[in-house]
Amino acid sequence: MEQRFSRWKQQSLNKLDQSKKGNLDRHIQHVVSLINSCQEYFTTSSCSGRIILIDGDSLCSDVQKQNCVWLFVSHEKCTSDDLMSGLAGSSGDAVLKFEPFVLHVQCRRLEDAQLHSVAVNSGFRNSGITVGKTGKTIAAVRSTHCLEVPLSHQGKLLVEREYVDFLTQIANQKMEENLRRIQRFYENLQSALSAEKLQKLQIPDPPGSHELHDPPHMLETENEDRKESDVYKRRRKREQHQTNCCHGDVDNSITELDDCLDLFL
Amino acid sequence: MEQRFSRWKQQSLNKLDQSKKGNLDRHIQHVVSLINSCQEYFTTSSCSGRIILIDGDSLCSDVQKQNCVWLFVSHEKCTSDDLMSGLAGSSGDAVLKFEPFVLHVQCRRLEDAQLHSVAVNSGFRNSGITVGKTGKTIAAVRSTHCLEVPLSHQGKLLVEREYVDFLTQIANQKMEENLRRIQRFYENLQSALSAEKLQKLQIPDPPGSHELHDPPHMLETENEDRKESDVYKRRRKREQHQTNCCHGDVDNSITELDDCLDLFL
Repeated sequence: MEQRFSRWKQQSLNKLDQSKKGNLDRHIQHVVSLINSCQEYFTTSSCSGRIILIDGDSLCSDVQKQNCVWLFVSHEKCTSDDLMSGLAGSSGDAVLKFEPFVLHVQCRRLEDAQLHSVAVNSGFRNSGITVGKTGKTIAAVRSTHCLEVPLSHQGKLLVEREYVDFLTQIANQKMEENLRRIQRFYENLQSALSAEKLQKLQIPDPPGSHELHDPPHMLETENEDRKESDVYKRRRKREQHQTNCCHGDVDNSITELDDCLDLFL
Repeated sequence: MEQRFSRWKQQSLNKLDQSKKGNLDRHIQHVVSLINSCQEYFTTSSCSGRIILIDGDSLCSDVQKQNCVWLFVSHEKCTSDDLMSGLAGSSGDAVLKFEPFVLHVQCRRLEDAQLHSVAVNSGFRNSGITVGKTGKTIAAVRSTHCLEVPLSHQGKLLVEREYVDFLTQIANQKMEENLRRIQRFYENLQSALSAEKLQKLQIPDPPGSHELHDPPHMLETENEDRKESDVYKRRRKREQHQTNCCHGDVDNSITELDDCLDLFL
């Protein structure tokens, strides 16, 4: 098992070197390097986040993505001129998207996959684990921090320039927040991987039953000023709030159950 | 451990009865009932999917959701009039969102959490597992099938009525696709849970390193006509494609590694 993981890692990193030279998103090189320097992990796919304009068939749905053309893509902030230029090339239904940082990390053992809790605590609240037959355990870093705005139909732009200016600001703000979260994740990861602290990480309980189907308040407990050490502190039990928030990047009330996470201690 | 899980389940289902009577989304009652009828599981939170208009502070970011007001919410399709009425109430930055089906299921054992593979195979491709210190294992059903469209700024509508009409169509299409996926999930789940077939489920490999940072083709292998029995068939090894698709609801090329998933056999 151990030899097999090491072999998988070597094969994967060889491919990484061949295909990505000069291509690895500069915003996450440090994260990828840190993870790959640990014997328990190797990254299998990553994207630092991107602003994209894709052009699809009329009524292009998610299942028809192979028919899409990319009008614009950036892993940095963009300008309104960038988007207008891209939209000028639309002949179908163009959609502006912001997609946040995504990372998949293959883990030596299931215990190592608690890496996903570092991601959750860093703001990537849809992070989790998948496990495969051959013992392939993947920690996925994910969030729902996004934008998806249809902008043209059958090649005809549906909005004014001023609206595209506004969208550009929004997309750039999301990119800035995304980059802050990546940095937070990197710092939390450094701290977690040092001194073998990984097993003591805390993670909020997943959403409980009380928070659904009731009115408007959505909890957000992500603390922008969180210090690295906070990763290890037990979260205060929060008051129960009536929320409707099993969606997206929100933390949820803690039930009466234990609220900290140590994997298989 | 077994008694503790049963106790957690009883407590959770009691709360469900008290808080949700009449409120459980009608589109997923059958899914929730099926899952809760199994001794290995209980649902902790769910939402069938929704179209919402939320109004936030200027430059409202994801971390400021507690300042948002809900102008409109529907678990069904909506009309353009619904959205225009909601937008008339905006005094800040209104955003139209489509959020797909979300489900969290607490599992008796880690092996039971392969439920998430049924979700992945049904189109909810961001599904996964989180594991807690106290042995609390949650299978989360998630996808990125969404819409997020800023529509007003400081109370001023930024788009024309015709654009809102178009967005209404798009949101409704996403709701229809979402409901189809829920039905697919329910049927796959019925099949998987019967005859203890759950352990033989197949899941595509998570994204590999080859599929990043290269051109426009995004694979979509979700087959709308997939039969329940396909859940159990080993996926054909696919050709490697150069894609840039560790994001969202796309399947990815299979590496040379085994592509089927049986958890801890």
